[in-house]
Amino acid sequence: MFKATIYVTLKDSVLDPQGVAVKGSLHTLGFEGVRDVRIGKRVEVLLECESRAEAEKQIKELSEKVLSNPVIENFTFELEEVA
Amino acid sequence: MFKATIYVTLKDSVLDPQGVAVKGSLHTLGFEGVRDVRIGKRVEVLLECESRAEAEKQIKELSEKVLSNPVIENFTFELEEVA
Repeated sequence: MFKATIYVTLKDSVLDPQGVAVKGSLHTLGFEGVRDVRIGKRVEVLLECESRAEAEKQIKELSEKVLSNPVIENFTFELEEVA
Repeated sequence: MFKATIYVTLKDSVLDPQGVAVKGSLHTLGFEGVRDVRIGKRVEVLLECESRAEAEKQIKELSEKVLSNPVIENFTFELEEVA
């Protein structure tokens, strides 16, 4: 069994309205030092798979096809074997 | 200037309907080895602050008060100094 932690983030060139809204709220609440906020996703996937190579291939594929939108988002992932 | 990366995750005891939906989609698409999916947030905050101790204090406070719901979510963060 493998556990993958996938991080999906907006590309730098893409405006993040949710981040802008959170920044505004933080300023209002007194956190005036906040210069920028960017919001992404963290997805944990538990995958039953025979080898690490196969797990890596599947995680890459599902991240590209399902979890992210390659036009506006990037993804990275970490993979660890679990009992 | 400090860059904090904050991870907000649902507590283990809390049902994650978004994760369940994604798991269903992945099965439909042929990723049958997927056993579990949990979805969280990854927030990057750029913070202008005089010291690391002060930055840590502010990030903890804003994570607790704004970015997470302590009743159902946990958070962790990493902090690094940037130019």
